[in-house]
Amino acid sequence: KRKKDPDFSNRGMTLEEDINDTNKYYLSRDIAVVHKKPTPVQIVKVDYPKRSAAVIKEGYFKQASTTDYNGLYRGKYIDFEAKETKNKTSFPLSNFHEHQVEHMKSIVAHSGIAFILIRFHCYDQTFFFPATKLFPYWESQSNGGRKSIPYQVIQEQGLEIPIQYPVKIDYLSIIDQLYF
Amino acid sequence: KRKKDPDFSNRGMTLEEDINDTNKYYLSRDIAVVHKKPTPVQIVKVDYPKRSAAVIKEGYFKQASTTDYNGLYRGKYIDFEAKETKNKTSFPLSNFHEHQVEHMKSIVAHSGIAFILIRFHCYDQTFFFPATKLFPYWESQSNGGRKSIPYQVIQEQGLEIPIQYPVKIDYLSIIDQLYF
Ligand SMILES: [Mg+2]
Ligand SMILES: [Mg+2]
Repeated sequence: KRKKDPDFSNRGMTLEEDINDTNKYYLSRDIAVVHKKPTPVQIVKVDYPKRSAAVIKEGYFKQASTTDYNGLYRGKYIDFEAKETKNKTSFPLSNFHEHQVEHMKSIVAHSGIAFILIRFHCYDQTFFFPATKLFPYWESQSNGGRKSIPYQVIQEQGLEIPIQYPVKIDYLSIIDQLYF
Repeated sequence: KRKKDPDFSNRGMTLEEDINDTNKYYLSRDIAVVHKKPTPVQIVKVDYPKRSAAVIKEGYFKQASTTDYNGLYRGKYIDFEAKETKNKTSFPLSNFHEHQVEHMKSIVAHSGIAFILIRFHCYDQTFFFPATKLFPYWESQSNGGRKSIPYQVIQEQGLEIPIQYPVKIDYLSIIDQLYF
């Protein structure tokens, strides 16, 4: 399926860069092995010029079937999605696709750790929000419930991750608290 | 040696296709959550035509920094690379990049399960070969050792995976044997 609003937009870049830096740090210190999955691309046409690298001449963004990141920490499988919003009062559920939520449910069912990192730009705050707290909102949405998670709920049921140096978004410290 | 049922002849299918089918089966039966990572592409130029999907007009293939597949099974993180060879007597180590082997070492160090699925086309055989058995060959190669793993070693230290229906490459049955 072709995607009209690709991940390629600027939306999401800053949080993503912070997370990528954090993961590099974790990897360099041998703390965890977490990588961002490449953006899935449907490749239609490729040129093979002489004496140089193959060039993709036609390709399309595909919808990712899973989440942004996964990896291994302290013997556990971890899996998460990074999302940013400019909203002040809530986080819109339209940020997710059905199969991403289904994927996170499978992870939880198979004893993995699934969560979301949500950044509220207005407050410059980043939250760790367990996927299990997302599921009830996702369900109720299809039953006429609200289409977003209130900011206050994210504050109460999530954990704020302070922006630090050198570990910018130290989400593993939250995992230590919640799952070990 | 196993006897092949001609009805289940699998010639023409690539190892990757067989594994993707297997993973779909695992997912549909809620047995495991394993996905192939998308091919990493460096996107240089994108067109945004009106009323249709964004088109990648220039892109390049990047070298993958990890392995082909990872996922979650029975609460454990699994990670593997799929490789095929037309060789008869050995599997060339040139099939790997340094960072892929480093990645598999990290996975083992953090209590994940890392392995290779190797298909020998001449014999129509597919083997499960634990990453830990690969590492000594990888090391000795840099110290003037041989540049390949003998087929006989793969037979002895690996486990052959029979091609079956409906689970084409039932590698989780091997994981059940070896890690649980
Ligand atoms: Mg994201
Ligand atoms: Mg491969």
